[in-house]
Amino acid sequence: MHHLLPDIQLVMRPGIVELGWGHPDPALLPTEALAQATALTLADHGAAALAYGAEQGPGRLLHALAERLGRVEGVTPPVAQLMITGGTSQALAMLCSQLSRPGDVVLVEAPTYHLALRIFRDYGLHSVMVPGDAQGLHVETARTLLQMLRARGERVAFLYIVSNFGNPTGVSLAPERRYALATMARHEALMVIEDDAYGELWYDAPPAPAIYNLMPGGPITRLGSFAKVLAPGLRLGWMLADPTLVRRCTATGMLDSGGCVNQFTAHIVATLINQGQLDQHIANARAIWRSRRNTLLTALARHLPAGCTWHPILGGFFVWVRLPTHLDAAALLPIAEAAGVSYLPGTRFFATGGGHHYLRLSFSLLPPSELELGIARLSKVLRSARS
Amino acid sequence: MHHLLPDIQLVMRPGIVELGWGHPDPALLPTEALAQATALTLADHGAAALAYGAEQGPGRLLHALAERLGRVEGVTPPVAQLMITGGTSQALAMLCSQLSRPGDVVLVEAPTYHLALRIFRDYGLHSVMVPGDAQGLHVETARTLLQMLRARGERVAFLYIVSNFGNPTGVSLAPERRYALATMARHEALMVIEDDAYGELWYDAPPAPAIYNLMPGGPITRLGSFAKVLAPGLRLGWMLADPTLVRRCTATGMLDSGGCVNQFTAHIVATLINQGQLDQHIANARAIWRSRRNTLLTALARHLPAGCTWHPILGGFFVWVRLPTHLDAAALLPIAEAAGVSYLPGTRFFATGGGHHYLRLSFSLLPPSELELGIARLSKVLRSARS
Repeated sequence: MHHLLPDIQLVMRPGIVELGWGHPDPALLPTEALAQATALTLADHGAAALAYGAEQGPGRLLHALAERLGRVEGVTPPVAQLMITGGTSQALAMLCSQLSRPGDVVLVEAPTYHLALRIFRDYGLHSVMVPGDAQGLHVETARTLLQMLRARGERVAFLYIVSNFGNPTGVSLAPERRYALATMARHEALMVIEDDAYGELWYDAPPAPAIYNLMPGGPITRLGSFAKVLAPGLRLGWMLADPTLVRRCTATGMLDSGGCVNQFTAHIVATLINQGQLDQHIANARAIWRSRRNTLLTALARHLPAGCTWHPILGGFFVWVRLPTHLDAAALLPIAEAAGVSYLPGTRFFATGGGHHYLRLSFSLLPPSELELGIARLSKVLRSARS
Repeated sequence: MHHLLPDIQLVMRPGIVELGWGHPDPALLPTEALAQATALTLADHGAAALAYGAEQGPGRLLHALAERLGRVEGVTPPVAQLMITGGTSQALAMLCSQLSRPGDVVLVEAPTYHLALRIFRDYGLHSVMVPGDAQGLHVETARTLLQMLRARGERVAFLYIVSNFGNPTGVSLAPERRYALATMARHEALMVIEDDAYGELWYDAPPAPAIYNLMPGGPITRLGSFAKVLAPGLRLGWMLADPTLVRRCTATGMLDSGGCVNQFTAHIVATLINQGQLDQHIANARAIWRSRRNTLLTALARHLPAGCTWHPILGGFFVWVRLPTHLDAAALLPIAEAAGVSYLPGTRFFATGGGHHYLRLSFSLLPPSELELGIARLSKVLRSARS
């Protein structure tokens, strides 16, 4: 038989506990709920779900989403500020083409989501790192860097931040820093792209209000996604932005030609929201991931050698482990994989260097017993490396 | 009640026979077949269909598609040359970003697909028109223009052509011109983008072999779509290209981050193909559209005033009507709409001017009785305009 091409990105290697992938556990994907919602959607809205969609996204989903955001967050956005995207990756690419020119600078957290950095690179943008701490981005440092860059004649296209339970650190931007960032953005006329892929996956208490909600009319664009709270394969997300930017994004030739980037899955998700099944699935997923988060943190506290530290993790998928400074996570990776555990080395998440003694662990993919086994193996590797 | 946003692009105005829209008739969309295929897909391949997809597209669809192309066309492409797209619109945007730089020239047919022109404009490209006739593009003129442009120092990114039953003319590139174009493309190292959205919608005999198949290894990229043969809302298509270009297109940050642009609908279509339902749906749709094509052509022959001409239409969705030269289709449109019929004025399809006495009629959207009514009304308008 000839070699078959893979269906999915995820590769599970036998004998290795994969703590590197930030993918949802396939066993937690809402297959049943989606089957029901699809059947209902095709029965009641088949012609609309299969037609060229409105460029902004189908009204059914825009209205359902605005209503749900109002219910969950207490602020109902006007639908003119909302647009359906093909997930955050597609939205970031769209925003790069609308907001930047090759050679522009983008301000990013150090560390930040590594694949956003790749998208920015594809558009010819230079990512400049802004440091942060357990409270998130240093806003004053961002302002200083911005002013220095502008004084040098650089064009800064936008600042990109994962505001809740960030990838890779798990850190959320503190409430007072959100306000400071929104104020700075308006004062400096700097666009802030707020990637909120993880906000609904809180395990102890809901996150602080979105930066977008703190400064109505400010230069802030917020991205949401159904990849984590439902399923990545749906390729669906949403954007909240100034209506002028929404109109620019919907007025491209690609959308005039093809309509909504994902009309079929958009209608299915509208049905899921209207039936209350999105809320139910998120509640279930939250309970399961909360328990896995607890398992992972307990295992880390029990097993990891002294000198390793990590932030408290209140949501999302990730734990960001700081190793003693003499250990290099990238150099240790082959040894760890030989010992049956994998992770992402911290260096991946820094635009222009750094992070050698950090690693990212994800608890999104594996059941508790695997998480425990993985941490036991990792700890053994780290202890051996110390001796 | 507040104003609700629309779900779809299509707007049907009461009292107007809409012959302007090139959308499939909503009544012909395979709602039932898709409901069954989705249920089956989620039952048998749910975890893969909902996960981050392989960047090239899920292997299930790539293998099914290659096998089907071999069966239908007699040439089975190696899967390394195949990639799943989010429809032709997304594929064109992707190819613009991979193959062109702002300021480049694109060679296009005069007339050509108007929304492709919009996409090229978004990427800062200058479309240069190459004339054609009932046999399609003048290949020798394209070569002369290419050489002139290059001699002037212009960079020509690619030549774009709708090879079968083109939009708006309905014309297909003649077999001997296909060979001449493929040869010219290789000799001049000019990339040809062959948009084959309509090839399967033949009503009398299958089209000539694809340009892509005439010159293996040549600089030719072929785009296929499920928008016309299944449903636009699926946002799914495919690309056949040099494996190097496929690898470049799959290696973007956007796909690394989000995986296949439409993993869920890709799996559903794989199921449809494997169950034989795509072939069955195409056969049904072909029979219905053939009959509507016949109705429209008969009505045109019966009603249109002398001096109006059109090409024979062997497939696709469109009839391109040439009015007597003293009539201006754009100027007549408000009069036609007031008389209860609409169309697209020819000017839309010319990159840099022309087409005033042409109009495009589509028989994809409306049932036979509406087509007849529309042509009767249009003829009345044209006759009055002549007097």
